[in-house]
Amino acid sequence: MLSRDGNIVRPQQIRLADASDAFVLDNGVRLGPIDVQFETYGELTPQRDNTVLLCHAFSGDAHAAGYHADDDRYPGWWNEMVGPGKAFDTDRFFVVCANVLGGCQGTTGPGSIDPATGKPYGLSFPFVTIADMVRVQRLLLDRLNVPKLHAVAGGSMGGMQVLEWAVRYPEFVDRAIVFASAARLTAQGIAFNAVGRNAIMSDPNWRSGAYYGQPQPANGLSIARMVGHITYLSAESMGTKFGRRLRDRAPAGMEFDDRFEVESYLEYQGQKFVDRFDANTYIYLTKAMDHFDLGADRGGLESALERVDSSVLILAYSSDWLFPTVQSKELVYALARAHKDVSFTEIDSPYGHDAFLLESSVQSELVAAFLDRRSRTA
Amino acid sequence: MLSRDGNIVRPQQIRLADASDAFVLDNGVRLGPIDVQFETYGELTPQRDNTVLLCHAFSGDAHAAGYHADDDRYPGWWNEMVGPGKAFDTDRFFVVCANVLGGCQGTTGPGSIDPATGKPYGLSFPFVTIADMVRVQRLLLDRLNVPKLHAVAGGSMGGMQVLEWAVRYPEFVDRAIVFASAARLTAQGIAFNAVGRNAIMSDPNWRSGAYYGQPQPANGLSIARMVGHITYLSAESMGTKFGRRLRDRAPAGMEFDDRFEVESYLEYQGQKFVDRFDANTYIYLTKAMDHFDLGADRGGLESALERVDSSVLILAYSSDWLFPTVQSKELVYALARAHKDVSFTEIDSPYGHDAFLLESSVQSELVAAFLDRRSRTA
Repeated sequence: MLSRDGNIVRPQQIRLADASDAFVLDNGVRLGPIDVQFETYGELTPQRDNTVLLCHAFSGDAHAAGYHADDDRYPGWWNEMVGPGKAFDTDRFFVVCANVLGGCQGTTGPGSIDPATGKPYGLSFPFVTIADMVRVQRLLLDRLNVPKLHAVAGGSMGGMQVLEWAVRYPEFVDRAIVFASAARLTAQGIAFNAVGRNAIMSDPNWRSGAYYGQPQPANGLSIARMVGHITYLSAESMGTKFGRRLRDRAPAGMEFDDRFEVESYLEYQGQKFVDRFDANTYIYLTKAMDHFDLGADRGGLESALERVDSSVLILAYSSDWLFPTVQSKELVYALARAHKDVSFTEIDSPYGHDAFLLESSVQSELVAAFLDRRSRTA
Repeated sequence: MLSRDGNIVRPQQIRLADASDAFVLDNGVRLGPIDVQFETYGELTPQRDNTVLLCHAFSGDAHAAGYHADDDRYPGWWNEMVGPGKAFDTDRFFVVCANVLGGCQGTTGPGSIDPATGKPYGLSFPFVTIADMVRVQRLLLDRLNVPKLHAVAGGSMGGMQVLEWAVRYPEFVDRAIVFASAARLTAQGIAFNAVGRNAIMSDPNWRSGAYYGQPQPANGLSIARMVGHITYLSAESMGTKFGRRLRDRAPAGMEFDDRFEVESYLEYQGQKFVDRFDANTYIYLTKAMDHFDLGADRGGLESALERVDSSVLILAYSSDWLFPTVQSKELVYALARAHKDVSFTEIDSPYGHDAFLLESSVQSELVAAFLDRRSRTA
């Protein structure tokens, strides 16, 4: 077993928007205070010009790399990409990752205490958008004295944040890397999210979101996760990984109790998820994804992308059917038509949407080279 | 409004396997009596050589065509394909369709009364297979004095029955037509079914299957149907039909209550399904599909198909991702290698798996011509 020495990271928390009305959300609702959980890897240079912001995906968190303790079984979610000599090289870059607004891993969300009542928000937590998440990240970077990003990078819901960053704060972002993402979710993507929300909200333990201090709506959240998990894998990788193998063969005549491996695996994934995730956060973040539409209030996608001033790298994955390559290409064409500096690769991978978490070696080459490129604005 | 005159069909019921131990299931369990609900269209010739058996899909029933009453809003599920002058021409063919064993539309299933207890079976209903369904259909045809089938046809789970028919009773089947089906479900298909079952079984109203006379596990069944429905449509057709349109735009600041059209549509489909379907049947029939594997106990697919003596027409649909074309081709190649009379077409359609219920005009030409061909065994 490898020693975790020197690879232990400490999660940090910071309070932003101290007053109860300090942060004005996209919908005009005021929210505060906002606590943000984040981690950093590497050191900020005296010139403060080497920051890379990582935006996590839907079920991710601030723990992108390293270990929290010597006996941690698993490292952060992008450990293969972040570290000394890795793609996001912590010998060179000051890497920051923060749990998103609405989350459940240390940043203010529906499970946090509402200062007005002294009780968890539950459904009284306001609707938050991808742009709200990005604006909170900007506040964090201001507090960390980061004047500009060398790069912002993220996959899936994280990629939506990257796109919002590049359009909202063009002067702040030198390079943007979008993994397995899109300018908006497809109708099918919204449909899968709706099923997950329905499963949670149908669970009697959900109690209209006021379940804190009582049992979680574990069944509903577990089913939501099972649905999600299917969409993160490809049919091919599920076939290769599980095929039609039975895990438990019931006694003769009792095939009703037979279980296929893929079935047990999904149920295990669902149950495991319940221990680390909050059901209301599931609802709020899927709603934020459903509503995200980069060009919607900006005169269309191309007009929105006119604002971009960073170099953009877009990575799609051949077997990703939740954020299919055609959606990445839509971004690429729109950026190209707007004469932006855009690079694109479709990585051949059997791993479906999850590929951006798994195809580290292919990605690392592309990302490392892109981070070394002189940006247009640098 | 069209008059239903002359297009009114009467559902029929027949009792087979009268004694309580008359029918021996694949797993050795004895079941009886078995009631079968069925419908017929057209007339059996004196030569008894013009019968076409239709096998319905998972959520289908015996009501394939026509209307039950003058004020029926919708006809049977394959009305466009079955009738005078249609593909399954009732001026020429005696068309039979029966609700499957384990079903909830008149044929014995988990909601039927167990003669041993006088109460609904619930989970004490035995595990049934696709082959069990086919053997019950065979009993029905025997009772109807049908000595041989001009053709057997069906889509999806119905196509699985068609394949089982052709392998199990080669001498009985002249022509077999398989729509949007496969010799076995993919791991992804099993996974989606597992999610549906979990949703039902997590519903407190499910009560381990003993909910008869009490409220249905409506929430769970509705969620199961929502998941299923997504898999029946293609991403493309969902995009075309719904896009990202909002159905209800909440007042400003309340976007949490916004609903996309696709979301409302799925919920409506889920709720509508609860009125006509039984949750335990959902569990039993998905289990039967998951376990179906045409070649499993027959020395492999090719060896199983060696037994086929009918002409076979296989139809796949370009946007069907639940039973993808590659699975149809697997059947075609195996039949061809076994020197069987097999025809295959992939129909270009945006409608996903549901296409076999919708692409009637293209299908009709192919089916009508195939039914006219002289069979090898005729």
